[in-house]
Amino acid sequence: MALSRATREMLGKVGVATLTNCLLKRGLRNAFMHGVQPLSFSLPNMVGEAFTLRFIPSREDVDTMATYASPEHVQRRAMEECPEGMVLVIDARGDARAAAAGDLLIGRLKARGAAGIVTDGGYRDLPGILRTGLPAYQRQTASPATPIVHHAADLDLPIGCAGVAVYPRDVIVGDGEGVVVIPARMADDVAREALDATLYEEFAEAEIAAGRSIFGLFPATEASRAEYEIWRDRKLKETP
Amino acid sequence: MALSRATREMLGKVGVATLTNCLLKRGLRNAFMHGVQPLSFSLPNMVGEAFTLRFIPSREDVDTMATYASPEHVQRRAMEECPEGMVLVIDARGDARAAAAGDLLIGRLKARGAAGIVTDGGYRDLPGILRTGLPAYQRQTASPATPIVHHAADLDLPIGCAGVAVYPRDVIVGDGEGVVVIPARMADDVAREALDATLYEEFAEAEIAAGRSIFGLFPATEASRAEYEIWRDRKLKETP
Amino acid sequence: MALSRATREMLGKVGVATLTNCLLKRGLRNAFMHGVQPLSFSLPNMVGEAFTLRFIPSREDVDTMATYASPEHVQRRAMEECPEGMVLVIDARGDARAAAAGDLLIGRLKARGAAGIVTDGGYRDLPGILRTGLPAYQRQTASPATPIVHHAADLDLPIGCAGVAVYPRDVIVGDGEGVVVIPARMADDVAREALDATLYEEFAEAEIAAGRSIFGLFPATEASRAEYEIWRDRKLKETP
Amino acid sequence: MALSRATREMLGKVGVATLTNCLLKRGLRNAFMHGVQPLSFSLPNMVGEAFTLRFIPSREDVDTMATYASPEHVQRRAMEECPEGMVLVIDARGDARAAAAGDLLIGRLKARGAAGIVTDGGYRDLPGILRTGLPAYQRQTASPATPIVHHAADLDLPIGCAGVAVYPRDVIVGDGEGVVVIPARMADDVAREALDATLYEEFAEAEIAAGRSIFGLFPATEASRAEYEIWRDRKLKETP
Amino acid sequence: MALSRATREMLGKVGVATLTNCLLKRGLRNAFMHGVQPLSFSLPNMVGEAFTLRFIPSREDVDTMATYASPEHVQRRAMEECPEGMVLVIDARGDARAAAAGDLLIGRLKARGAAGIVTDGGYRDLPGILRTGLPAYQRQTASPATPIVHHAADLDLPIGCAGVAVYPRDVIVGDGEGVVVIPARMADDVAREALDATLYEEFAEAEIAAGRSIFGLFPATEASRAEYEIWRDRKLKETP
Amino acid sequence: MALSRATREMLGKVGVATLTNCLLKRGLRNAFMHGVQPLSFSLPNMVGEAFTLRFIPSREDVDTMATYASPEHVQRRAMEECPEGMVLVIDARGDARAAAAGDLLIGRLKARGAAGIVTDGGYRDLPGILRTGLPAYQRQTASPATPIVHHAADLDLPIGCAGVAVYPRDVIVGDGEGVVVIPARMADDVAREALDATLYEEFAEAEIAAGRSIFGLFPATEASRAEYEIWRDRKLKETP
Repeated sequence: MALSRATREMLGKVGVATLTNCLLKRGLRNAFMHGVQPLSFSLPNMVGEAFTLRFIPSREDVDTMATYASPEHVQRRAMEECPEGMVLVIDARGDARAAAAGDLLIGRLKARGAAGIVTDGGYRDLPGILRTGLPAYQRQTASPATPIVHHAADLDLPIGCAGVAVYPRDVIVGDGEGVVVIPARMADDVAREALDATLYEEFAEAEIAAGRSIFGLFPATEASRAEYEIWRDRKLKETP
Repeated sequence: MALSRATREMLGKVGVATLTNCLLKRGLRNAFMHGVQPLSFSLPNMVGEAFTLRFIPSREDVDTMATYASPEHVQRRAMEECPEGMVLVIDARGDARAAAAGDLLIGRLKARGAAGIVTDGGYRDLPGILRTGLPAYQRQTASPATPIVHHAADLDLPIGCAGVAVYPRDVIVGDGEGVVVIPARMADDVAREALDATLYEEFAEAEIAAGRSIFGLFPATEASRAEYEIWRDRKLKETP
Repeated sequence: MALSRATREMLGKVGVATLTNCLLKRGLRNAFMHGVQPLSFSLPNMVGEAFTLRFIPSREDVDTMATYASPEHVQRRAMEECPEGMVLVIDARGDARAAAAGDLLIGRLKARGAAGIVTDGGYRDLPGILRTGLPAYQRQTASPATPIVHHAADLDLPIGCAGVAVYPRDVIVGDGEGVVVIPARMADDVAREALDATLYEEFAEAEIAAGRSIFGLFPATEASRAEYEIWRDRKLKETP
Repeated sequence: MALSRATREMLGKVGVATLTNCLLKRGLRNAFMHGVQPLSFSLPNMVGEAFTLRFIPSREDVDTMATYASPEHVQRRAMEECPEGMVLVIDARGDARAAAAGDLLIGRLKARGAAGIVTDGGYRDLPGILRTGLPAYQRQTASPATPIVHHAADLDLPIGCAGVAVYPRDVIVGDGEGVVVIPARMADDVAREALDATLYEEFAEAEIAAGRSIFGLFPATEASRAEYEIWRDRKLKETP
Repeated sequence: MALSRATREMLGKVGVATLTNCLLKRGLRNAFMHGVQPLSFSLPNMVGEAFTLRFIPSREDVDTMATYASPEHVQRRAMEECPEGMVLVIDARGDARAAAAGDLLIGRLKARGAAGIVTDGGYRDLPGILRTGLPAYQRQTASPATPIVHHAADLDLPIGCAGVAVYPRDVIVGDGEGVVVIPARMADDVAREALDATLYEEFAEAEIAAGRSIFGLFPATEASRAEYEIWRDRKLKETP
Repeated sequence: MALSRATREMLGKVGVATLTNCLLKRGLRNAFMHGVQPLSFSLPNMVGEAFTLRFIPSREDVDTMATYASPEHVQRRAMEECPEGMVLVIDARGDARAAAAGDLLIGRLKARGAAGIVTDGGYRDLPGILRTGLPAYQRQTASPATPIVHHAADLDLPIGCAGVAVYPRDVIVGDGEGVVVIPARMADDVAREALDATLYEEFAEAEIAAGRSIFGLFPATEASRAEYEIWRDRKLKETP
């Protein structure tokens, strides 16, 4: 059930808001990470399967500088082990009193081919992170050193992030508004439906700008679907 | 007591901060909507009378897709009924877990000539909203579908929004800092006073930049008012 | 123990995140002002010793317009008395329901040569503040008039700001991420160490971008320090 | 669809937690008023249909002592008009900075035969309220005078209270843990099911205290239901 | 303007809610300490003039065990210096992550004759505090050691506590609902008015319990005042 | 390093506040679970090693009634597997919108010999829980059914609870004020030191009640320690 290239491409073209609609139709009401924002608003959509890192609160006798330098350190291992094309999702318990990661670690993640990084905590060294070009989402900037608050506990277990369940290999999509989590087995269907809905909204936006009422247009009716299909087919012909 | 063209123009030239001063002088301490921000910082002031929409929490058996499509749906009616030149103010109980509106509905509002939209919740489809060009103020972006959290209950009743009372036809002004509510019967007086205060602040800003102390200048004294009036008269002559 | 020119220059070149590391090494875990953000992200670092202003809640019978105009008014005195090169730090109890300062007062502070202004509350008249060019940090924009919430109580006592202790003459550094407080007696040492760490991070960033693992590179090892020193010496030669 | 005497009696014997289970089975996930607590833990269940009162934020020019004394004052009218046997539910926008009601108003409500009072704000004069004997639920004690924060806007419209939708005539049940809202048309069914579940839990509690595992007992299986029915029939015989 | 014995006695007989009414009539809207609760609900009213202690955030290099033991330690000095009959009010910035005081310090305060202790933080060793018998008000129990979060900065300056301004010698009154601050110069008048209002409410409570409407009774009218005065005079005769 | 009977007994006699002091001396500043309260204030101290249960947010397609009834259900397994004498600590992410456990599950835990239960969420069916007699600590009562918000993910991993790190077999102590976490390897030492400190405080309390100053008594000096030892030896002789 790995994320196919076709699904990845479709998810690159749709908005997070539209995806929440498709998930609501399937009974999922809680898939959007509230309060999580992109560092940069000018990047394309972030799309990838979830690889997870879980933090618990730090403790002064455990989280010393010595453990921090160890090759066994779980936060560092996350950066060296997150598979290519995946999104590292960090459960920081919503706590931005210390950094979930900084520019060097995120630079390594980018160099190894990750698709993005998401946390419900925050990052430090924002200019450096922006230089890496990796899509990065956080709740609030968090400059203080990680061990002041966080201890990296384990990798690739199911976690919560910003109030949403994230199971390893769920599909994570981020745009300029935020991040949504799609259960792995629903990703293909949801991507197809969302792409069609996105086109319909493009059609409707043009109609509304031209003065048409939303009644009979949004939500779609059978009649407006028929109009849309003509519009869509013409459009697809025009843009080969 | 409809909003006159002259008052509307004056309110387009003054800042929200200045308006809170004028309201404080009239005994109103709670007129600024805390935490409500514009989507775009480059638009001119939003000015218009309030038309209100009230949300209550949604309930799964009431807020189905079927009701959402009905022409009686109150959220949709708000977009079709908000009078030209008015600002739609939505009481979302400060809850941004689901959208108070999205780009298509807001596009319709713009096409029908509304002056703006304000909520203490949030919107979805932000790029689409920015394309409409309608001034839009919110507390936090809210991508999930509306019926997850909100049920549109009624139109044009007195409401609270971001902790401020909003009566239908109160005058709503928004700038880059936020939104203030002016009781309808005070709007003309407040506009005149705020425009004069704005000019005085322009005078004082130049004086301060040139090295003058704030004592005797801000707040104004009789002497500084006299100086200001000379400055103002010269300025008005220079910019015909 | 006044802030030396050399230390001021070094602190102008390092990031706030790096400074929190140096302070953690000295046992200080709580030096970053959480939630405090710059108004402008394009200014150079703010560096200066702290001059403090303390607010308490206002009371209607004490905080009238008459007291506000008095030359004894403590908020106004702060603007006229903050020494050149220092940063005015305002304890607003984290309360942004009314302004800690506005553009005219901050313009005066700039004209008198202050290095910046920081509060855990907020400011009004943001466009005017940006025009002054003074680095200004706040938690949330606060347009309403000051006396609605704040009473200026006293100057240059130890205060708390955004949860951090600030003693007069502590060294305040702000960058695009936020503000850190350095105890006066540590400033020289911390500045030197942070500047070296900043150069090392520049070295490491380049290595990581070129594909090197973080293990053995970050945190630094003896071997990586040796490499770095060669890199640094070459770099210093190249940029005379 | 008025609340029948039989349903009222059944709802008097079941817990709020059990009722949330019955509502979840019917698809309702959001029926419990989070953070709302009874003033007294020793009263029997509060049961009654909802009569609603809606507050908006007060404004100094509208909410004067003069309006407060008027027979048209909506907060006062609520106390004089709430029908016998009903529960007055007050939408205070979760704001406990000023009282939603005090002992005299609540005393009047009791004298007129109301079944209880609920708010997501708070009350003043708690000892006096306890003396009335009326079941009263609030979020936090709120001693300051009502007009400091609240304006009573209207009666018996749909409202939100503590994040839950309340439609007039919904059935409100309160016990020592809090308050749940049951849609009017579900009340009879839910009451019957909850009473049976309550008896089953009594049976299971005894079994567990005697050392039995929860597996096969909770949730119930066909076998455990059969055991329960024997236990129940014996019990009903014993307590005529 | 010291607190007279007569005023102290009257304030011992009235409720905090009633006092907020009297203060609102004098234009003070913000005199009640929101969220501050008594440890014991069975003590008589706490009444006394304010003696203040101000905390700022602690810093690891300043707040060591050595400073804690010094006779100059400001928290300890507060306990040894708070005058007899006064209430120690501690500005803990609303932070209950560490104790504002514990049972031994509060025991000392009681032994020296203080009238009570109030903080917007919290206390540790609650059973010990209850044994001292001193009225104590806090926001939330705070067991951790003081220097983890707090540094005692100074004594008897104006402070904020739970969002309310407290000037030294303001009159502090606490009952089972919370704490109110009365400006020193208003205390005598407010006490007299509140005592009369309390008697009136006793009269009204009896009338309402007997079935009378609140209209014409609460708020009082001229006619109801006349009735009340007859009731009061009879009552005063009966209880010599 | 299992918890010895002697250490368990000592920890049964000391307060949580005293234990935070002993932990601070060992460099641990964050061991107290803020906001977590006992259901009953009349039980003896809760003492036991930690057995952990971790919740993540629920998802509608995973957390159905069917999974809830399975013998593999992790929440149920926790109740059947928590070893005798241990404390079940539940990481509920501070979320009390749905129950972490109810009376039947907690009854089973009690029947199997657990020492207590702790969560940073909340419980349902409080009267039933009190009947079991098991010490139970929570942040806020949470009546709604568990799967509305929580999914039980795994057992006996390191977790965070109310902001504190909890490793399996850490020693958990609860009294009327709250809960503290003691690292397993420190438990014996900390228990001894805390018991001595508790006796010293008993001595100091008596001295202070008799009118002695806190200076020279608290914190202890060499001289006061000598006095105390005489007092203690006499006391131990008197209570055999």
